[in-house]
Amino acid sequence: MTQTVSVALMDALTGGLEIHDLGRPLTVGMPQSPNHPAYWHALPRRHGDMVRADGGSAANDIITMGTHVGTHIDALSHVSQDGKLFGGLDAADALEGGRYLQLGAHTIEPMVRRGVLLDVPAMRGVQRLEAGEEITVADLEATLARQGTEIRPGDVVLVRSGWGQHFDSGDGDTFRGLTTGVPGVGEAGASWLAAQGIHATGADTIAYERLQPGAGHGLLPAHRVLLVESGIYIIETMDLEGIAAAGVHEFLFILSPLKLVGATGSPVRPLAVVGQ
Amino acid sequence: MTQTVSVALMDALTGGLEIHDLGRPLTVGMPQSPNHPAYWHALPRRHGDMVRADGGSAANDIITMGTHVGTHIDALSHVSQDGKLFGGLDAADALEGGRYLQLGAHTIEPMVRRGVLLDVPAMRGVQRLEAGEEITVADLEATLARQGTEIRPGDVVLVRSGWGQHFDSGDGDTFRGLTTGVPGVGEAGASWLAAQGIHATGADTIAYERLQPGAGHGLLPAHRVLLVESGIYIIETMDLEGIAAAGVHEFLFILSPLKLVGATGSPVRPLAVVGQ
Amino acid sequence: MTQTVSVALMDALTGGLEIHDLGRPLTVGMPQSPNHPAYWHALPRRHGDMVRADGGSAANDIITMGTHVGTHIDALSHVSQDGKLFGGLDAADALEGGRYLQLGAHTIEPMVRRGVLLDVPAMRGVQRLEAGEEITVADLEATLARQGTEIRPGDVVLVRSGWGQHFDSGDGDTFRGLTTGVPGVGEAGASWLAAQGIHATGADTIAYERLQPGAGHGLLPAHRVLLVESGIYIIETMDLEGIAAAGVHEFLFILSPLKLVGATGSPVRPLAVVGQ
Amino acid sequence: MTQTVSVALMDALTGGLEIHDLGRPLTVGMPQSPNHPAYWHALPRRHGDMVRADGGSAANDIITMGTHVGTHIDALSHVSQDGKLFGGLDAADALEGGRYLQLGAHTIEPMVRRGVLLDVPAMRGVQRLEAGEEITVADLEATLARQGTEIRPGDVVLVRSGWGQHFDSGDGDTFRGLTTGVPGVGEAGASWLAAQGIHATGADTIAYERLQPGAGHGLLPAHRVLLVESGIYIIETMDLEGIAAAGVHEFLFILSPLKLVGATGSPVRPLAVVGQ
Repeated sequence: MTQTVSVALMDALTGGLEIHDLGRPLTVGMPQSPNHPAYWHALPRRHGDMVRADGGSAANDIITMGTHVGTHIDALSHVSQDGKLFGGLDAADALEGGRYLQLGAHTIEPMVRRGVLLDVPAMRGVQRLEAGEEITVADLEATLARQGTEIRPGDVVLVRSGWGQHFDSGDGDTFRGLTTGVPGVGEAGASWLAAQGIHATGADTIAYERLQPGAGHGLLPAHRVLLVESGIYIIETMDLEGIAAAGVHEFLFILSPLKLVGATGSPVRPLAVVGQ
Repeated sequence: MTQTVSVALMDALTGGLEIHDLGRPLTVGMPQSPNHPAYWHALPRRHGDMVRADGGSAANDIITMGTHVGTHIDALSHVSQDGKLFGGLDAADALEGGRYLQLGAHTIEPMVRRGVLLDVPAMRGVQRLEAGEEITVADLEATLARQGTEIRPGDVVLVRSGWGQHFDSGDGDTFRGLTTGVPGVGEAGASWLAAQGIHATGADTIAYERLQPGAGHGLLPAHRVLLVESGIYIIETMDLEGIAAAGVHEFLFILSPLKLVGATGSPVRPLAVVGQ
Repeated sequence: MTQTVSVALMDALTGGLEIHDLGRPLTVGMPQSPNHPAYWHALPRRHGDMVRADGGSAANDIITMGTHVGTHIDALSHVSQDGKLFGGLDAADALEGGRYLQLGAHTIEPMVRRGVLLDVPAMRGVQRLEAGEEITVADLEATLARQGTEIRPGDVVLVRSGWGQHFDSGDGDTFRGLTTGVPGVGEAGASWLAAQGIHATGADTIAYERLQPGAGHGLLPAHRVLLVESGIYIIETMDLEGIAAAGVHEFLFILSPLKLVGATGSPVRPLAVVGQ
Repeated sequence: MTQTVSVALMDALTGGLEIHDLGRPLTVGMPQSPNHPAYWHALPRRHGDMVRADGGSAANDIITMGTHVGTHIDALSHVSQDGKLFGGLDAADALEGGRYLQLGAHTIEPMVRRGVLLDVPAMRGVQRLEAGEEITVADLEATLARQGTEIRPGDVVLVRSGWGQHFDSGDGDTFRGLTTGVPGVGEAGASWLAAQGIHATGADTIAYERLQPGAGHGLLPAHRVLLVESGIYIIETMDLEGIAAAGVHEFLFILSPLKLVGATGSPVRPLAVVGQ
């Protein structure tokens, strides 16, 4: 181990970095799943409410929210199948004192890894995929081929559908797609990604999954394949429009979840970093 | 701009990275300031509460908290002096619709920067500083000299007092130091740091400041100098024990605050990255 | 003053009381206004999570909510007109330390008063009023005449529209009526009620007001007349179906708001009591 | 059934009522148990934040809290013994979808009942009982005898220790008594009360129980006897100073808990009503 940062990292810093923000702003009323506590924020104290004798004043906040609202990562404790979490762990055994002390959000190691964007709409030549459309293995392979990108073990793979445009436009009902559906990676695509040995995968949709019209946010086959069977983290409600527009397909992916002890997920603000 | 990640960054990834986690776990009952809403977490739904026909089940969370609890960053909207925020902005003008739309937490750019640790107790040859002790300019200079470290403009400077040991040991009363005091950078030290042109500074204490015994969390001269006069972000309640033990004094500092629109701070999990 | 309860009250108790519950159950996902923090409840601790050596175990809750969700009462601090609250008090002057210490929810005296139900749909011979329909002065007078009821100064007057049937049926969109409208007392009716010298008035709708189709929850003339000009409390989202079905038009009205210091309203569970 | 309120009740109203408020104000920072989510309140919107074209403006709130903070009532789902709730119901069976749908707070019927105050310090001739002191059966009987009060089946019995004076004085540490203890009804006293066939019982302490110095809020024998074995509700953190000072020992007791579906308790503002 070295006491000084590596030459390569310092060179990168010196050369200048381009940082793409993949996290969405958290605002009251933003589109989110009705299954999770809504994001709320208020200022209990504003400047001027309590001014000290020296003229100083501090303002502060209260936040209430679920951990699966806004841009967030799912911990492996989030989804179970037949009572089992990843690794065959009994979901009841993962609990201690009312928290998932095993496989909880606090066990997600911060990620500083190679990241890859799969820009599916760009491959298809469309602005965005259609509601309820499945992203197939053929789609994933064609996107890689078009981009000349390869997936390596340990990568974080971000799959863009273009659906985040509905978040940007404030069309929460379409973004959620509870009745109209959402495009996403199907069970086969999830299995294919898992076979590449990736570490995590993300999407610009609310649930990563392909949600068929009228099906709500119920069946979650990709969650089962990724979280339960493969131990691969899922990141949702990402903003992938910016890196797509910039044509960035490979990057240093950074994600540092809050160490929420015993939780099933964490809000995050992931970054894609490239050198200039 | 390049579509592929820079050679230097890829080399860094290939060579292996050592990631030091500077964020503290968020747990119910952890030491925090009584001025801010306490961190609470619960599982509204556990596995087994609602099992789908296919055997799948999802657990989820509710979180309530202030933004100045646990490891967090202060936005420039957090502190005002004589009614003014950084840049002379009237605090009332920064508000819109009940949020600090100017200088709020959402305006903090993610940080991927050179970071420096100033290990003051190591320079002093003590395990940790004393309650209420001021970290002076002489202390800062002596620490830099001993370490052979330099501060450059744009850096993030982390000042260790060793006080985080009280967080680790669960001694919340001593960590908070409401009656007994907390060691920290004084007004002169803050001005000296600001003069170096740094971007942000952090500490392993609850309020960054030197808090004198019996003074509570009231007078905040370093906050005034840093946030209001200099536009320098403050990071509090950091875990600096690990990097200190590893002797890491320079690193790639990573911090990506939640984009909490209009808030005065954000919980974070900062990272110190070195190459191997 | 007497040390023993009055003979009349004891007789009433001895004779048996019939208690009608006018409060709606608080459940996650219930219909509520999007302007207010949604009601959420979770059990941080369930039985079995932490069992003491003696075999005992306690379960507990966390609640987050606005104060204008579910059945609730509006404090006089809730609505201002041209910057003024009831009595000409400047809204800014009512604030102290970030709370409405004047006219806040904690200043609402518990109510043990004569109550009157005005069953407007029964007068009209319909199941319920139509979306966006105004309850006029003529409606109020015709209802009183049909019922043979009189309004006395100090009374609490509950005006039924039948709209609560949509809450019961779980049709939140219609109950809220953001696009389709809600029936309610108009400005003229509110003025007429105020002229009777009543103490408070309630309804089985989300905002008491007549909301015209497409107008959202914006213009609130009855709130202005009642809260700001007359100091008359408003109670919303009441369950008036039961007393209407029972034909109860006069009763002992009981309402005991939580003493939420500085708040603008409180959730309540009002009661209508009649002797048997 | 009658359509008009009973003659006795109307007479009571006509004659004038004296209403004693037994609920404590809910304020941020008030003394409460560390086992439960703290009470927090903020104004997401103040007057002036968003003013409509017609000059109207609405302020509103966000609340987060446990249900066992402030003056509150325990539902029968709150405490179990050896996995069983009242009536031998298995605690796990009372749960449905993550809530105690059986014996939850929503199942507590509003109370309009005969109430009795047992003023133990008045009997003893002291201002208040001592920390950790047990209220014995002899104490209860001597208090009844001194007052000339009788307990009848179905009554609500409030047992005053005077400990609420520490709440009033803001001495939260003493009020909580985690290390120093709290006076209260012991196991024998609880059994004696249960044998009278009462409906509910309350106290001016944080946990109703006698808490021995250094024992924390752990062992809860009165909770077991009352909630689990007898189905008798417990009301805590009441303000009994006012009715004691007024010498009121019998009254109409009114308590209307929020219908929090599946919760283990509810904040309340109970009333003691006497005729004049």
